[in-house]
Amino acid sequence: MDVGFIGLGSMGRGMARNLIKAGHRVSVYNRSPEPAKELAREGAMIAATPAAVGGEVVVTMLSDDTALEAVMFGKTGLASAMRRKTVHLSMSTVSVALSERLTELHSKAGQGYVAAPVFGRPDAAAAAKLFIVAAGEAAAVEKAKPVMDAMGQRVFVVSEQPSHANLIKLTGNFLITCVIEGLAEGIALNAKAGVDPEKLYEVLTETLFAAPVYKNYGKIILEERYSPAGFKLPLGLKDTRLLLQSGDALSVPLPFAAIIRDRFLASVAQGDGDLDWAAIAKRAMQDAGVDTKISAK
Amino acid sequence: MDVGFIGLGSMGRGMARNLIKAGHRVSVYNRSPEPAKELAREGAMIAATPAAVGGEVVVTMLSDDTALEAVMFGKTGLASAMRRKTVHLSMSTVSVALSERLTELHSKAGQGYVAAPVFGRPDAAAAAKLFIVAAGEAAAVEKAKPVMDAMGQRVFVVSEQPSHANLIKLTGNFLITCVIEGLAEGIALNAKAGVDPEKLYEVLTETLFAAPVYKNYGKIILEERYSPAGFKLPLGLKDTRLLLQSGDALSVPLPFAAIIRDRFLASVAQGDGDLDWAAIAKRAMQDAGVDTKISAK
Amino acid sequence: MDVGFIGLGSMGRGMARNLIKAGHRVSVYNRSPEPAKELAREGAMIAATPAAVGGEVVVTMLSDDTALEAVMFGKTGLASAMRRKTVHLSMSTVSVALSERLTELHSKAGQGYVAAPVFGRPDAAAAAKLFIVAAGEAAAVEKAKPVMDAMGQRVFVVSEQPSHANLIKLTGNFLITCVIEGLAEGIALNAKAGVDPEKLYEVLTETLFAAPVYKNYGKIILEERYSPAGFKLPLGLKDTRLLLQSGDALSVPLPFAAIIRDRFLASVAQGDGDLDWAAIAKRAMQDAGVDTKISAK
Amino acid sequence: MDVGFIGLGSMGRGMARNLIKAGHRVSVYNRSPEPAKELAREGAMIAATPAAVGGEVVVTMLSDDTALEAVMFGKTGLASAMRRKTVHLSMSTVSVALSERLTELHSKAGQGYVAAPVFGRPDAAAAAKLFIVAAGEAAAVEKAKPVMDAMGQRVFVVSEQPSHANLIKLTGNFLITCVIEGLAEGIALNAKAGVDPEKLYEVLTETLFAAPVYKNYGKIILEERYSPAGFKLPLGLKDTRLLLQSGDALSVPLPFAAIIRDRFLASVAQGDGDLDWAAIAKRAMQDAGVDTKISAK
Repeated sequence: MDVGFIGLGSMGRGMARNLIKAGHRVSVYNRSPEPAKELAREGAMIAATPAAVGGEVVVTMLSDDTALEAVMFGKTGLASAMRRKTVHLSMSTVSVALSERLTELHSKAGQGYVAAPVFGRPDAAAAAKLFIVAAGEAAAVEKAKPVMDAMGQRVFVVSEQPSHANLIKLTGNFLITCVIEGLAEGIALNAKAGVDPEKLYEVLTETLFAAPVYKNYGKIILEERYSPAGFKLPLGLKDTRLLLQSGDALSVPLPFAAIIRDRFLASVAQGDGDLDWAAIAKRAMQDAGVDTKISAK
Repeated sequence: MDVGFIGLGSMGRGMARNLIKAGHRVSVYNRSPEPAKELAREGAMIAATPAAVGGEVVVTMLSDDTALEAVMFGKTGLASAMRRKTVHLSMSTVSVALSERLTELHSKAGQGYVAAPVFGRPDAAAAAKLFIVAAGEAAAVEKAKPVMDAMGQRVFVVSEQPSHANLIKLTGNFLITCVIEGLAEGIALNAKAGVDPEKLYEVLTETLFAAPVYKNYGKIILEERYSPAGFKLPLGLKDTRLLLQSGDALSVPLPFAAIIRDRFLASVAQGDGDLDWAAIAKRAMQDAGVDTKISAK
Repeated sequence: MDVGFIGLGSMGRGMARNLIKAGHRVSVYNRSPEPAKELAREGAMIAATPAAVGGEVVVTMLSDDTALEAVMFGKTGLASAMRRKTVHLSMSTVSVALSERLTELHSKAGQGYVAAPVFGRPDAAAAAKLFIVAAGEAAAVEKAKPVMDAMGQRVFVVSEQPSHANLIKLTGNFLITCVIEGLAEGIALNAKAGVDPEKLYEVLTETLFAAPVYKNYGKIILEERYSPAGFKLPLGLKDTRLLLQSGDALSVPLPFAAIIRDRFLASVAQGDGDLDWAAIAKRAMQDAGVDTKISAK
Repeated sequence: MDVGFIGLGSMGRGMARNLIKAGHRVSVYNRSPEPAKELAREGAMIAATPAAVGGEVVVTMLSDDTALEAVMFGKTGLASAMRRKTVHLSMSTVSVALSERLTELHSKAGQGYVAAPVFGRPDAAAAAKLFIVAAGEAAAVEKAKPVMDAMGQRVFVVSEQPSHANLIKLTGNFLITCVIEGLAEGIALNAKAGVDPEKLYEVLTETLFAAPVYKNYGKIILEERYSPAGFKLPLGLKDTRLLLQSGDALSVPLPFAAIIRDRFLASVAQGDGDLDWAAIAKRAMQDAGVDTKISAK
């Protein structure tokens, strides 16, 4: 299939490469030219502007609402260039509000819109092991299916309303932040009580919490390995903010999310904005006066 | 080995039975006589008072600090009756403070003290599938090891200081409450946005949160199946209180735990004290005005 | 002086009337015509559009950002019609962000911009007893001074940067919400303990908290007199939201404000959106299961 | 009247002196002898033990539950020595639970018990300007009235149940902490926005918040004048803990109090335990990265 791909960041690069590998004809656009050139060597066509990207399905994979709006509504933006029947497969983690706005825009233009945010880090993107949460009208989802299949290990089709996929994605990220904060409080308390945090970690992750999310973030917190960032802290703040905005719009109080937001703000205020989002765990340590290296490993 | 067992509640019954099955000579005490009689039919000896329970290792499995104190310090209590060298294997979920007090008491009396709280519900207790978190002096733990092995699928020896096992247990329960509250907030938000909660559940529990604790509590919340209680709400409040008391004693702020505490108090205040502790999820629904049956299943 | 006045709501009406009384020549605009006609009978000129309002100083007194933006940037908006040297005296409680945007806009157009939000309810507006918090360039403030003097009992000039006045106003409203929530928690606790809330009220308001804000809101909460609303609950939510947005923009965690926000959202979700903003106190009562009439008065 | 007085700390000293000045015959006991000797020079008799203190009314003014329990139940404690009909005027800020226990104890012994905690700092105690919140059976309150009148500017009789006075006192202290935290958050936000905190202070304390509690604590926070402590931070933590314990016992969630508790714990954990309790304001500054001197004054 002819597929367009906009956004060759650490995630997008691997995703676009997997489309090429799967035999699709891929035209790519990226703001900075290097990543596009790299993919061109593997068979991609380079588009000079978002508008120049072609294909029956156009994938966007950008960092936030602002970047996606720039690609859509800029002078040489995608919105004015897409043809009828084309499907916009929007895989960025963006707000429910923007997703609703794009749903309406594409609908009026006779185009398809599928929101399809993903769970997984760059290594999962490179290995076509992403979990993809897709929502949109059945025909559009159907058309985008082979494209998604080439990038993920599993596609969950959750609703005909695209923004539902965005909300589920934000909820998943919220639950990860709850794991981080919960572990941070627990580790701070145990460390101060003289419990060996490695023992705490072992008991938790080999009994009730034997999931990678506890193992990975528990290890990061114990080893204070917040750099290089797997997922940058300000992106975590952004997602928490989007979740709280949905809560505000729908009148849903979210006390855990409110605490997480304050953890993120305090982290940015204190100079931790370049670290991994798990570094919000430093706040619980700071509050408790646990300021030495927790673990020797 | 000669083993004493005090406390034949829904957990203790299965645990004592597994000791008999493993070939130990077990004498049992329970405040109400029926459960003891039942075990007598399977080979246990009945002790008329806690003090009358014999054995090289005496197991206590009681509901809270008050119950354990009553058994220890009552007129015919265990404290005055235990012989030197005997090991008290204390498996209740009790406070760090009481555990420290018993550590000192037994030490002065030349007895052993092993704190060994468990993760697992009554069915796991019956099936000898408990996870046991043990701490105490090496010799005492060594002596109690065959007793623990007969009741659990795995024993984690975490420290020479008994109270460390209690704190780890409380931390594990705290993380479960964080899962419940996180899921409750997420489900309330999605439900109000019109997302099918079953889809949300599917995506979460088949991607990042593929652990039984998410599957079980997610299902309970979706189906509002809070009765009969697997673990009664006031016991969850008790454990949260004990965790916060440890935080207070050690000067460790615990903002998530503080929210959980308020959820428990509000639940008790509003008449949900007989429900499963997962019913704190009703508060997030109430706050959001999500008051109808979430899921039809 | 020739003064324009846009926004004749419950506050603006009294304020415009005081300008007339003080001898200014006032032209008024209001979206619905009735209040303008009423003032015309007292000497005001009626402008058909915001753009048609004249004067050396133009006052705007609107309910929120959206209403002020509509007046400024609508087809017949004020922004395109104001002449050089004219001063826009912006008295609405709006966001720091909008205030900064208007500061830049007016500066480029060679006009003055003074942010001057007020403390006081409609009765204070009618009696020219408002407290006015003003910020802007000295010359513009100077020019607007007689206009402010005619409406308030005191003008605080706080900064040359207009948005500072907006932030101070939002902070004042935030502190009021803290008074409401603090009183609500205290009253819920005492009521449940069997303390006569009137005695609690008397002790508090005649010792350390002898300020009208405690007396008024304490009385409202004790008597559950949330209707008719002196200040509508959704306006309180709006101001809390604006404060939190400032905190977000500046990386300042605000845990009390986060709780207040959740109280407002829960109140809206449960149908209390038409009540006075003090009705967030109902949440503390609900959480505590204090559901009967607290006070007989 | 013959009056006993136990506890000559910074508060008690001035209170006992005022009793002497008012013409009462006062016998005093204090753990360390110096303050007692000082009062002896002014006419007091010195008692060697709490039990040796005589009088128709015996005042206790101690720092916390533990100190009061030591005086009551120690070997030479007051409990065993008080005669029938004597009234124990208990003016310490202690827990509702201890107050209830003493109520029962004195009742059984045919003695009177009046709980009468105070609002006011040492200078108010010295000047007989305390606000006294009294509760107890009418006859006992009547008997203690002249004693209270000699120490306070006003006595509020709030209930026949002594512990009600204790709860009202704790509630008052809680509202003070809410003022401190609210101001701290507001000042952190404004400081970071570039608003002159002195202007913020002026606007707030000369409009809606013109009460000494805002003026005093606002000034302390602006000037970071946390030492010497007027009221030590751990005492504030103690009172917050007692309030939360009452909330726990009565199933009343107290979200503001929970945040205050965490502020106190973080302050102790980070070495601020010797400062004035207003130093919890440092946490909001720290979270916001506002770490320089806020005000030049």
